[in-house]
Amino acid sequence: LSKHAPTLIAVDWGTTSFRAYSIGPRGAILDRIESPRGVQSIAAGEHETLLTSLLKPWRRAGASPPILLSGMIGSRQGWVEAPYVRTPAGLKETAAAIITIKSKGLGEIGVVPGVLLEEGSSGPDVMRGEETQVFGALAASGRAAGDFVLPGTHSKWARVEGGRIVSFATYMTGDAYAALRDHTILARLIKAGREDSDGFAAGVRAAQQLAAPGDLLHALFMTRTLGLFDRLSAEQLPEYLSGLLIGAEIHAAATRGANPTVIGSPTLTRRYCEAGRILGVAFETAPDDCAALGQSALFVEWRKLRSAD
Amino acid sequence: LSKHAPTLIAVDWGTTSFRAYSIGPRGAILDRIESPRGVQSIAAGEHETLLTSLLKPWRRAGASPPILLSGMIGSRQGWVEAPYVRTPAGLKETAAAIITIKSKGLGEIGVVPGVLLEEGSSGPDVMRGEETQVFGALAASGRAAGDFVLPGTHSKWARVEGGRIVSFATYMTGDAYAALRDHTILARLIKAGREDSDGFAAGVRAAQQLAAPGDLLHALFMTRTLGLFDRLSAEQLPEYLSGLLIGAEIHAAATRGANPTVIGSPTLTRRYCEAGRILGVAFETAPDDCAALGQSALFVEWRKLRSAD
Repeated sequence: LSKHAPTLIAVDWGTTSFRAYSIGPRGAILDRIESPRGVQSIAAGEHETLLTSLLKPWRRAGASPPILLSGMIGSRQGWVEAPYVRTPAGLKETAAAIITIKSKGLGEIGVVPGVLLEEGSSGPDVMRGEETQVFGALAASGRAAGDFVLPGTHSKWARVEGGRIVSFATYMTGDAYAALRDHTILARLIKAGREDSDGFAAGVRAAQQLAAPGDLLHALFMTRTLGLFDRLSAEQLPEYLSGLLIGAEIHAAATRGANPTVIGSPTLTRRYCEAGRILGVAFETAPDDCAALGQSALFVEWRKLRSAD
Repeated sequence: LSKHAPTLIAVDWGTTSFRAYSIGPRGAILDRIESPRGVQSIAAGEHETLLTSLLKPWRRAGASPPILLSGMIGSRQGWVEAPYVRTPAGLKETAAAIITIKSKGLGEIGVVPGVLLEEGSSGPDVMRGEETQVFGALAASGRAAGDFVLPGTHSKWARVEGGRIVSFATYMTGDAYAALRDHTILARLIKAGREDSDGFAAGVRAAQQLAAPGDLLHALFMTRTLGLFDRLSAEQLPEYLSGLLIGAEIHAAATRGANPTVIGSPTLTRRYCEAGRILGVAFETAPDDCAALGQSALFVEWRKLRSAD
C-alpha cells in the first residue's frame, strides 16, 4: 500500500458547488477536485454519471475507497434524501443516520444527514452540510463545546455542548442582502463591486444602535438617504447595507462573553471579524477544509458502527 | 359663477399614479380624474403636454382654476424640483416653499415641496406627498397633534405637534416584502394571491416575540421552515411574511399609549388595524382623499402668502 493511498473520498456537495477531497489514513488531505456543478444544476438520474466523471482523475490512479457525501446532495432536491437527525446531534448520532447508496461503478457511497431543530422558541430550523463543518472545526480545535457561525446566503449559528450540536439558528443575511440590493429602490443608487471598510463600518455601527427589530426596516431606508445626501458614495452604499445586516446578525446571535468560531471563506471571515471588532465580539477562526475534517471524523464513527453490525 | 365652479385643481402625482381632484369653494370634491401615468412613466419635457391632456375633460367645461401638484412630481425625477422644507413643517412653512411653474396653456401651477428630517438619531429622512396627506388628516379631524402612519412600499410614520410635522421615519416594509418574497429562497415555497388572516396573525405574533433587531433575519427564514414542515400552507406563507414585517414595523414605530392614525387604502388600513389589535395598538382611520383635503388647506395658506406679497 502506497503511503499516499486514500482511505476516503469526502465530497462537500452543496447547492452551487462541488468540492471533493481525497483523504489519507491519518486524515491528511492528499488531493482535491472542485467543480461548479452544484445540486441545483443537476437533473434527477444524472448524479451517478456526473460523480463518476468528476472523480475520474482519482479512479484512473486505481484508488476506489469509500465515498462520503455531505450537503444539499442529501436533500429532497439532491440525489437521495437522507432524513434529518434531531438535535442534540454529535458525531455518533449523525454517523448512525448516514444512509448508503450502492453504486455499481463507484461502490458504497454514504450520504450524511442534515440536522433538525424541532419547533420551539426559535425553530423549526434545519441545516445540511454545516453540521459536518462544525464537526471538522471541533476536531481541529480538540474542543467539545462552543459557538460556531457559518456565514453566507443563509448564515447558521450553532451551539455545541458535549460534542453535540444542541441548538442553532439560520439568519437569511446573504439572501436578504442580495434581494434588497438588487430588487428594491436601493438598486438605483447602489454601485456594487468595491470593498470599502468605512462604508461597512458605518453599517455595523448603525446596526449596533437599533433598538427594536422593526428598526431594521427603517435603517434599510437610510442606505438610500445617506446616498441621496452624499453622506456615503454609491460605492460605499452596498458596503453599508452589508455591514448593517451582518452587524444586526452578529448583534442578535452572539452570546455575551463567548468567542464564536467563524467557519467560512477568507472574505466572509474577514468581514465577520471586522464587524466583531466594532461590536465587541472576538471571533476565532477555523482552519480551511472543515468539511473534509468533519467527514473524516464522521467516517471513523461510521466504520465503527458498521463493524459492530 | 356656477355653484359647482372649482376653485382649485389638486393633483396627487406619485411615482406610479396620478390622481386629480376638482375642488369647490368650501373644499368639497366636485370630481376626480385618475390615471396610471405616474412620475416614473414620464420622460423629461412631457409633463405639461400630459397634464393638459389628462385635465382636458375639466377644461372643456370652461374652468381654469389654479393647479397644485404634490408628490414625487416635485422631486429630481419629476417635473420641477421643489426643494425640501425642513422639520418642523406645518401648513405655513410648507405653503411658503411651494414653487410656481408658469404654463401658457394651464396658467399658474404650484408644486408642493417634500419634507426633510435632518441627520440625527433617525435621519436624514425624506417624504414627498405624505406631508400633504397628513395635513389633510389634521384638517379632517380638527386636531393639531398626533402620530400618523402612511403604509406602503415605503411606510412613513410622522409625529405632529402644534400642527407641524416635527419628526418622521420611513420603513422599507412594502419594498422589502416584495423583494424577499420574489427574490430569495422563499420564492420557491410561496404562493401569493389569497388573503389569509391566520397566516398574517402568525407573522404578527412572531414579530412580537423578536428580541434583537437581527432576529428579524432569523424570523424570515422561519417563513421557509414553517412551509417545509407544513405548519403553514404555501398560500399562508406570503401572509406570514407580510404579518412579520408589518408587525415589526408597528412594534418599532408606535409610541406606547398613542393611537396612531392610518392614512391608506382600505386594504392596507385593514391589515394595520388587524396587526394593531394583536400588538395592542389602537389605530384610528383617516377619511379617503386626505391628499385633496391637504391641498385645499395648503392652497388657503398659499393664497394668503401671495396676497401679502
